[in-house]
Amino acid sequence: MKLESYVYGKWVAGAGAGVGLRDATSGALIADSSSAGIDFASVLSFARERGGPALRDMTFHQRAGLLKALGKMLGEHKPEFYALSTATGATKADSWVDIDGGFGTLFVYASKGTRELPNQRVFVDGGTEVISKTGTFTAQHICVPLEGAAVHINAFNFPVWGMLEKLAPALLAGMPVVVKPATSTSYLTQLVFRRMIESKILPEGSLQLVCGSLGDLFEHLTCQDVVSFTGSAGTAQALRRHPVVISNSVRFVAETDSINSSLLGSDAGPGTPEFDLFVREVVREMTTKTGQKCTAIRKAIVPAGISADFIAAMKERLQRIVVGNPALEHVGMGPLASLGQRTEILERVRLLRNEAELVAGDPDQFTIEGASRDLGAFVPPMLLLCKRPGSARAVHTTEAFGPVCTVMPYESLEDAIAFARRGEGSLAGSIFTADDDIACRLALGLAPMHGRLVLINRDCAKESTGHGSPLPHLVHGGPGRAGGGEEMGGIRGVMHYMQRTALQGSPQTLSRITGRWIKGAAQVNPGVHPFRKPFHELNLGDTFLSGSREVTLEDIERFAALTGDTFYAHMDEELAARNPFFGGRVAHGYFLISAAAGLFVDPDYGPVLANYGIDALRFIKPVKARDRIQVRLTCKQKTLRADKGYGEVAWDTEITNQMGEPVATYDVLTMVSEDANPGNI
Amino acid sequence: MKLESYVYGKWVAGAGAGVGLRDATSGALIADSSSAGIDFASVLSFARERGGPALRDMTFHQRAGLLKALGKMLGEHKPEFYALSTATGATKADSWVDIDGGFGTLFVYASKGTRELPNQRVFVDGGTEVISKTGTFTAQHICVPLEGAAVHINAFNFPVWGMLEKLAPALLAGMPVVVKPATSTSYLTQLVFRRMIESKILPEGSLQLVCGSLGDLFEHLTCQDVVSFTGSAGTAQALRRHPVVISNSVRFVAETDSINSSLLGSDAGPGTPEFDLFVREVVREMTTKTGQKCTAIRKAIVPAGISADFIAAMKERLQRIVVGNPALEHVGMGPLASLGQRTEILERVRLLRNEAELVAGDPDQFTIEGASRDLGAFVPPMLLLCKRPGSARAVHTTEAFGPVCTVMPYESLEDAIAFARRGEGSLAGSIFTADDDIACRLALGLAPMHGRLVLINRDCAKESTGHGSPLPHLVHGGPGRAGGGEEMGGIRGVMHYMQRTALQGSPQTLSRITGRWIKGAAQVNPGVHPFRKPFHELNLGDTFLSGSREVTLEDIERFAALTGDTFYAHMDEELAARNPFFGGRVAHGYFLISAAAGLFVDPDYGPVLANYGIDALRFIKPVKARDRIQVRLTCKQKTLRADKGYGEVAWDTEITNQMGEPVATYDVLTMVSEDANPGNI
Repeated sequence: MKLESYVYGKWVAGAGAGVGLRDATSGALIADSSSAGIDFASVLSFARERGGPALRDMTFHQRAGLLKALGKMLGEHKPEFYALSTATGATKADSWVDIDGGFGTLFVYASKGTRELPNQRVFVDGGTEVISKTGTFTAQHICVPLEGAAVHINAFNFPVWGMLEKLAPALLAGMPVVVKPATSTSYLTQLVFRRMIESKILPEGSLQLVCGSLGDLFEHLTCQDVVSFTGSAGTAQALRRHPVVISNSVRFVAETDSINSSLLGSDAGPGTPEFDLFVREVVREMTTKTGQKCTAIRKAIVPAGISADFIAAMKERLQRIVVGNPALEHVGMGPLASLGQRTEILERVRLLRNEAELVAGDPDQFTIEGASRDLGAFVPPMLLLCKRPGSARAVHTTEAFGPVCTVMPYESLEDAIAFARRGEGSLAGSIFTADDDIACRLALGLAPMHGRLVLINRDCAKESTGHGSPLPHLVHGGPGRAGGGEEMGGIRGVMHYMQRTALQGSPQTLSRITGRWIKGAAQVNPGVHPFRKPFHELNLGDTFLSGSREVTLEDIERFAALTGDTFYAHMDEELAARNPFFGGRVAHGYFLISAAAGLFVDPDYGPVLANYGIDALRFIKPVKARDRIQVRLTCKQKTLRADKGYGEVAWDTEITNQMGEPVATYDVLTMVSEDANPGNI
Repeated sequence: MKLESYVYGKWVAGAGAGVGLRDATSGALIADSSSAGIDFASVLSFARERGGPALRDMTFHQRAGLLKALGKMLGEHKPEFYALSTATGATKADSWVDIDGGFGTLFVYASKGTRELPNQRVFVDGGTEVISKTGTFTAQHICVPLEGAAVHINAFNFPVWGMLEKLAPALLAGMPVVVKPATSTSYLTQLVFRRMIESKILPEGSLQLVCGSLGDLFEHLTCQDVVSFTGSAGTAQALRRHPVVISNSVRFVAETDSINSSLLGSDAGPGTPEFDLFVREVVREMTTKTGQKCTAIRKAIVPAGISADFIAAMKERLQRIVVGNPALEHVGMGPLASLGQRTEILERVRLLRNEAELVAGDPDQFTIEGASRDLGAFVPPMLLLCKRPGSARAVHTTEAFGPVCTVMPYESLEDAIAFARRGEGSLAGSIFTADDDIACRLALGLAPMHGRLVLINRDCAKESTGHGSPLPHLVHGGPGRAGGGEEMGGIRGVMHYMQRTALQGSPQTLSRITGRWIKGAAQVNPGVHPFRKPFHELNLGDTFLSGSREVTLEDIERFAALTGDTFYAHMDEELAARNPFFGGRVAHGYFLISAAAGLFVDPDYGPVLANYGIDALRFIKPVKARDRIQVRLTCKQKTLRADKGYGEVAWDTEITNQMGEPVATYDVLTMVSEDANPGNI
């Protein structure tokens, strides 16, 4: 079978013999892979000219809808994905991380896109910046999709998740993607990809797949393209210094080698829940995916006094792990992804053994269930002990990308921090302690060198997602050796595919561009009370200016009696006079916003369904008895929930006094029906 | 005079002859510059070991205070800075941009640091992420200062602002800085720097200065260091591909060449205010700083039908610009910064003339006031016309870094956008139009290729800060040719000097590390009502749980009568039953939060001075007559305003019903005195 690529809208088999891809357990040939003959300039221009415009024509919510649809559709094909995944050496549990983990990422981005991004094409980044005295000239940052292609170069260890975790934020941003999976497991990526193409959920040009090398693709990159690389530091560095990447300032996100640490607190001796949790987690990180995770624990940093107990507990648990054919139910750890990986890891272990002794797992003597030692890429879980980590080198800088971990005893927390930092930048670290003082010291010591830190104790362990699991909500990446990049992190990850631009101009012009009414822009009297208008008839800037109302001492007294709020500043002239902000008895702030509602509410049945909240309420000036208040409401932002028959409308609201001075400002949040007669909902 | 560097706590004169720095007008020798003999590894370790820890020991507010003090102190030395600035070729107006502009940046960062950052050492980035079902395991991103040095390599054109605009966000983040000014104008940078050191405002090690080359400094960079470069694309690229930068993933921010465009809308013919504003702005951008601004307008893109009018208007205005000795009051444009610059710019203009004709300004024939043509680096303002910008190349890619601009006529808005985008990534663009449809089309067409866009019309022109002025509030940087970096942008700029880390753990542990109470962390009954506690006695987690109160139909009626809010959902059972969210008559949301205040307020005089606002109020479940409500307040975040005698305290607030279900959640914001008896304020 020739593994096909999907480029410029069609499936293409590469020319020539290609690379043979083999089952990790049996060594059986699965497919040949080659990208020879592909025109990479055309791949990029197809993304730019077909996929990009189609995606940019949608709103964030529409694109989030595509992700959700993809996730649902792929979920229906799980059995065939799990079946093929076994060939990569994955046990069922390993496949779950890769396959269900990948689909989960699509759903999280679909959900975040709908909740945290606007239902429009421009993302408004941060608040308006005040840059002029009277406000006729103002500023607002926006983010718009880059107009090139996102080139995703993925690692072999997560053929499904690795594709989907990058694809989700890129598509949500509005950028078409070119997926280049690592060759050795690309047959699984290709199967999942094929189902996405067949489903026709995405517009043509949004997704292309290159099985094999990227040829001269880098020669054609511009500043509108993004490269996101996962793999070895060496390859990342070579790509990052590519002349075109350098001269065109091509955005380059790298997630590379990482020597990750897990630290056991000095409080967490044998018999404590944290000790047991730590042992379990180190074993899990060593053996899940046969240790082929860029986030796996490579260094177990433990109090010197209990390192022997820790090693004993580890040996006991590791002995129980059955190594063998991942298709067998009772096998706990399958082979590495390829024989090449096995050769490399055994070489790395030899390097480590110059500074550390092997205390568990012998690569020359271990049992393999249901598979051949010669044909499959098997190694046992190997635990090493480095007695003097302070003076060692290789243990801090050598990534053995398999079931390999080195124990490092420490005397003081400072040493523990120093050993972890010797990794020179890591993706993930974890800390096991029940003592929050220790947790805090270790976390702040590790934070500058880590992209993610997990703090585990008996209270959170049950719901913990573990040391080694990147989550779409959280930044995945780390400084230094880890590549200096950031992926995911919720909406942060979407921004890697967008250009941030500072806009300056009149509030009216900026409102027009951003789709959000900005203070100073026109306030339009729409002729009717805006609460009479169904969602689609409302315009940004539609304004209601209420009548005015005198606030009386009787109002204050009655409000206090009704609510029970008898704070002295409202009730006692003499005491209130001592208050540095009030200088006398004042109306309740809660009365002001309640009376303002009385002034602005249109009481009759109509399209406004509910006032579901308030944002950013600030009381600016006290209101005293005999002051008159008035309120202004201006339609500020509209977010349609198309499938629900209504939308969210935020109203810029300002209460002023008889001098026209603002006394309170806030956003009133309402649900407004698409229907003038919302009984039909 | 030998220009000294300031390294490892002392002033050091470089060895050897050095480079001669000359007055731009007279050619007189001002100083010799050399960094020979400096130990650059020690420069970095001095920053890391002395400056870093001292800065990190302070809170953001304390560091903001340093910036404010620096700005004030430097303001007292203005006369000597202005005097020396003339030697760089700057007129008084040019010096204002550089000197007062630089000081302004310090003040803006001081102010933003105090308002937008917490008064603590850890920055909490974004909200808590929900990653478990019951909330015992949660996540929060934080940012902490990088623990290396910020190496700032600055350009010659802004010897003061160029230093301060980078130094402000770095110091605010808590990173020590090594300043490396461009050699030709480094004598002015050095004078300003010397006053900062003499003032002893900053802790030792926070600031070092290298006048001359950086020697082997790059060999010693790690992933905890940041390089921020401003200058030519060629140098940026060479530094960016330095092996140590690549292999250690050293953060590298670049702001380089940029061919910036200004577009005149098709509506803005002669006689319109926008036409006149455009002419004035292009002239200003050509001549301010003798056109030596990375943001200056290099391409004036105008409707073809009025390009002749535009050129005529430009010629008329340019003729009035007096070129000469910048010390003379009536001189409008001084020399370039050096004779080397003059040679380079004249060469670039020759290149441009292959595709464009010179329509104003003749470098071989122009008048110079009060200076010698041979000794000073003078050129006239030069306007070119490129009749076929669609087929031209050099005009889109050649930056003549002086008073040089090329006019490009366009037929359609699509062409105008395409011409601007041919710059391949720009720092700044501007659009002059009174038509917001045109503004919107042009802005969204340009946005992916620009870091900043200014939209000018008659309404905002008076308060406009202009095309070419970066503001500390706004991102300065751009994609592609502009270097792909971002500086400033308010607090965004501070984050370049910090590591973002995702923390996962129990709410209690994360509250401890972040200094912010997180939902799920302990709620502690402090024994007294927390409103009785002065600021410093309050602890995160201090909680008040109120008694409960029944909500009656009479409450609803009385509240409606008092406030005037007679929305049907509160008043009419039958209509309310039709509402999809309520299904029957409900209490006013405003009544709930008012009654909640009645339940939680401690009425007597005490340290709580005011409830100054509410954030993120959401009504979650309707409350009907005969429901009982109760409220919980938990101390969530404390921000001391040390100089004011009080602090801001945010209270996580939740109203629940008799079933214990949340009906409303919000943050109550209070001002709490440091004094138990705040009459003393």
